[in-house]
Amino acid sequence: MEIKTYLSERKQIVDQALQEMMLTPEGPFADHIEAMRYSLFVGGKRVRPILCLAAAEAVGVADQQADLLPVACALECIHTYSLIHDDLPAMDDDDLRRGKPTNHTIFGEAAAILAGDGLLTWAFDLLSDTTQGNIPAETRLAIIKKIATASGPLGMVGGQALDIATENSEYPFSTLQTIHRHKTGALITCSVEVGALGAGASNRQLQQLKTFGDNIGLAFQIVDDLLDETSTTEQLGKAAGADASRGKATYPAYFGIEQTRVKAKEATDRAVQALEEFDHRADPLRSLAEYIFTRSY
Amino acid sequence: MEIKTYLSERKQIVDQALQEMMLTPEGPFADHIEAMRYSLFVGGKRVRPILCLAAAEAVGVADQQADLLPVACALECIHTYSLIHDDLPAMDDDDLRRGKPTNHTIFGEAAAILAGDGLLTWAFDLLSDTTQGNIPAETRLAIIKKIATASGPLGMVGGQALDIATENSEYPFSTLQTIHRHKTGALITCSVEVGALGAGASNRQLQQLKTFGDNIGLAFQIVDDLLDETSTTEQLGKAAGADASRGKATYPAYFGIEQTRVKAKEATDRAVQALEEFDHRADPLRSLAEYIFTRSY
Repeated sequence: MEIKTYLSERKQIVDQALQEMMLTPEGPFADHIEAMRYSLFVGGKRVRPILCLAAAEAVGVADQQADLLPVACALECIHTYSLIHDDLPAMDDDDLRRGKPTNHTIFGEAAAILAGDGLLTWAFDLLSDTTQGNIPAETRLAIIKKIATASGPLGMVGGQALDIATENSEYPFSTLQTIHRHKTGALITCSVEVGALGAGASNRQLQQLKTFGDNIGLAFQIVDDLLDETSTTEQLGKAAGADASRGKATYPAYFGIEQTRVKAKEATDRAVQALEEFDHRADPLRSLAEYIFTRSY
Repeated sequence: MEIKTYLSERKQIVDQALQEMMLTPEGPFADHIEAMRYSLFVGGKRVRPILCLAAAEAVGVADQQADLLPVACALECIHTYSLIHDDLPAMDDDDLRRGKPTNHTIFGEAAAILAGDGLLTWAFDLLSDTTQGNIPAETRLAIIKKIATASGPLGMVGGQALDIATENSEYPFSTLQTIHRHKTGALITCSVEVGALGAGASNRQLQQLKTFGDNIGLAFQIVDDLLDETSTTEQLGKAAGADASRGKATYPAYFGIEQTRVKAKEATDRAVQALEEFDHRADPLRSLAEYIFTRSY
């Protein structure tokens, strides 16, 4: 399978769904909606929505992928909100994201905070909208619960809070793992899980796909750490070397570049291994895992 | 009915439920959870949760009030998150709330933004947790949808965005109404509606309770405007006269104190009028409406 073609086709499907489902900038709150839309449509590889759809495909219910588009879009809204808030002056204070000015540099800090709040809340609006996608009520609730837990205080937000709180301090490797697993890993794993849930996966399939998700989440973050160290700002679309200059611990800081690459490869292998019992319909997931790893070169 | 006794009993029930349901400050994210808990437990009259429970009572299914406690708690989490973000330096820059230092003055700006994010996300976690409260799946989804819409870009967040964007500018009274209806009114109306929904209200009852909610939401905001003008900081527990000094339009600015009080009374009367077809079980709602109005004296 040609992964780049697959990714570009899927990205197009997700982008179109986002355009169709997202609020349009009109009425009294047009400026607020414009700020939300800016960050949602400024770029982004749509990794989480694509993982969600690919997980549904792996379970084998190709028809249900259209029903899962609202879930896929909600994941991207939550990811985008987290980027807007992470970039704020009070947090990482970044001017550049996805190669473009960050939300607050264009709309101001207050509007950016609210754009993030709006995207997060709107994600749950979309998820609970029973006119969007044919998903049984119990399954829909299970999906909402999983997404809320993965993005909440014991998931993504908690990880970000710990990341900010430990800046410029020395901490053991286990703390770095906790930050990574929650700040980045939780929503990635969750994207795979909710795709599988929505497609009616068995408990065994769910368990295997969770292992897959955990390991690509880890690989994704390790590669991100690597790229921050080895790329230029132009290549990244955001400030390179930002982790080190901010006194953040990273995999390369603990293990060096070469050993970090080995660890990314090991996580990728474990991810692919977890799909052993799946047939060719899991090929997109397998390719996605390899793709995430090869970004490190 | 002695409204003060009723309110204090209800507040106790809600406070206890919040204590039981809320995350405890332990594990790697203890500091983050501590910041969330600070604002949640620093005070607050629990108006929205109490409205939710009283609406369920009005519909007549007293037994279901316990099942609705998670919904009531979620409403308070969302309200609290909105206060934390409103108080941020980039927004209203307030040091005092509920008579205590605001979240960011204690935990710092980044942690306060994340405490708000955490509370908002956790509200949806609680709402979608099917082990919390016995509510049919379809009803639960309808409740989540209503809360997400009321607090999102076309509701509370939109209203706050418009409020911030129009500071220090002259605008027509209709804009003030739009801000009030969304920033404050939407979640208050929604609190009444989801209580009714959860208790299995008929469409007719829902419609009447929505009218009730719209009007007490309006009365609540008019009284808030009045209090900002006529009270001391000590009485309010937050900076008095803040609206005027911030160049925000208010009801008294348009109508003067006396006429504003008349408008608050009219809204209260319309609210009580909407309950005409309800029996004595709606007495708590009726008293709540009167209580909101009498705060203006």
